[in-house]
Amino acid sequence: MIFKKVTIIGLGLIGGSLAWALKKSGEVTEIFGVDLDEKAVDYAIQEGIIDRGSNEIENGVKQSEIIVIATHVGLIPRIAKSVFDIASKGSLITDVGSVKGKIVEEVELSLPSHLYFVGGHPIAGTERSSVWAADYRLFQGKRCILTQTQKTQAEALAKAKSLWEIVGAEVFTMDPKTHDRVFAFVSHLPHVVAYALINAVASEKEPDNILEFAGGGLRDYTRIGASSPDMWSDIFISNKKNVMEAIEAFKGVLEKIRLMIEREDIKGLKEELSKAVGIRNRLDK
Amino acid sequence: MIFKKVTIIGLGLIGGSLAWALKKSGEVTEIFGVDLDEKAVDYAIQEGIIDRGSNEIENGVKQSEIIVIATHVGLIPRIAKSVFDIASKGSLITDVGSVKGKIVEEVELSLPSHLYFVGGHPIAGTERSSVWAADYRLFQGKRCILTQTQKTQAEALAKAKSLWEIVGAEVFTMDPKTHDRVFAFVSHLPHVVAYALINAVASEKEPDNILEFAGGGLRDYTRIGASSPDMWSDIFISNKKNVMEAIEAFKGVLEKIRLMIEREDIKGLKEELSKAVGIRNRLDK
Repeated sequence: MIFKKVTIIGLGLIGGSLAWALKKSGEVTEIFGVDLDEKAVDYAIQEGIIDRGSNEIENGVKQSEIIVIATHVGLIPRIAKSVFDIASKGSLITDVGSVKGKIVEEVELSLPSHLYFVGGHPIAGTERSSVWAADYRLFQGKRCILTQTQKTQAEALAKAKSLWEIVGAEVFTMDPKTHDRVFAFVSHLPHVVAYALINAVASEKEPDNILEFAGGGLRDYTRIGASSPDMWSDIFISNKKNVMEAIEAFKGVLEKIRLMIEREDIKGLKEELSKAVGIRNRLDK
Repeated sequence: MIFKKVTIIGLGLIGGSLAWALKKSGEVTEIFGVDLDEKAVDYAIQEGIIDRGSNEIENGVKQSEIIVIATHVGLIPRIAKSVFDIASKGSLITDVGSVKGKIVEEVELSLPSHLYFVGGHPIAGTERSSVWAADYRLFQGKRCILTQTQKTQAEALAKAKSLWEIVGAEVFTMDPKTHDRVFAFVSHLPHVVAYALINAVASEKEPDNILEFAGGGLRDYTRIGASSPDMWSDIFISNKKNVMEAIEAFKGVLEKIRLMIEREDIKGLKEELSKAVGIRNRLDK
């Protein structure tokens, strides 16, 4: 056993999958799950995803070695603070939020000296959500970013790293600012664009059966456009500055391509498109 | 046997797959393939994709019941006209171009009275191209649009319909103008956006390893961004007016979402994103 008790607050896709993966690893004495939804807790116990559970944070946090906050991004700082008074001395608090700057700053600012905090962001997930979609293999071979700041304690970082390695993830450290910049471009922007694209296609009413002709292209492409609106609204606003800059960068390239089409600049267009194909093919590796 | 000789001009992914599927059907006496690339012709003969082949159009077109032009969109009208003088009386000329307005108009304008023309567009394809990627199952269960205009002869349309049904496609008829409007939104716009997105992400140089963190989201989504730049440059310019209008519609929705993020309008954002999820889920059916 590597860890004694691990508490996961928020049994959604990520929280549920992490709990289950830790359970399967056999390296944790007890997995405690907390969720407001009693049905989610009951389901998780029945399926062996967690050992015990509750819909109240207080019941789960005591004597926990690690407390993982796996709720929507906007709730994480508040939940972290509510844990401060009840967590046992030496506990590590960590999270799985897709935006890190705000969370890490807010939590570190008020963190009591007897607790530790390391921000986390596993790069895994599907368009589905909830514990019913949980999969203990979700993190295998995936990356997990952990934040490192001037306040990060080496021992706490090592513990968080070990937690994610147990479930098969490859751990990278980043400062929260760099993290939010990178993910604004590689993840948040693609989601903004997917949502906008779907609504733009659907806005065209002529002919009224236009969506019937959407081929595999639009379908594949917009898989991420089926992701949770609540979660993503929260992410976009939590990473507002970077997301808006990424949208501006995208608008610039789109306008360049639009102008090439308008001017029938086939040479320029081929070059621009070839650049994208070259980059896209590198992503496959 | 339903057809005697069918000639396919252009042994790319679509032409090669159509030839092969017709061959497998056993409903065509002879499949003749034409491609400028001798290696493609040799490969297609070797693999049993075509019966005979040539790199000159003239050799293949004589005595053909149906001549399918499966080259890039921009070349189709010119090739159709070059076929006029050599095609046998009563032959049906058809094509597989993703844009129909320009092609149908230009070909119908100069079509001799002893020949027939019906525009076609199978809604199938992958990001790969060339005869080496051909697949005789490519059209099974897929849609194929055939154009219907005031000049379209019922008999010619029925013959084109039969050709695509033999290879497993479901045939729909549309006037060329509606076709180009529909596909500007459901296919051409998503491609423009995918190319622009990839180049926008890659334009961000801070940090320089930003692409390493692209998750499954960006990868899946940009599959179509790996499609042939030559083919797509050609399509965008051939359908310029509609594609530019689709880009404008998309820019409008993107700006609406950007403003909601700027104003932290979480309620509006959730509504806008939920709309997309609802539409996206309908595409799955």
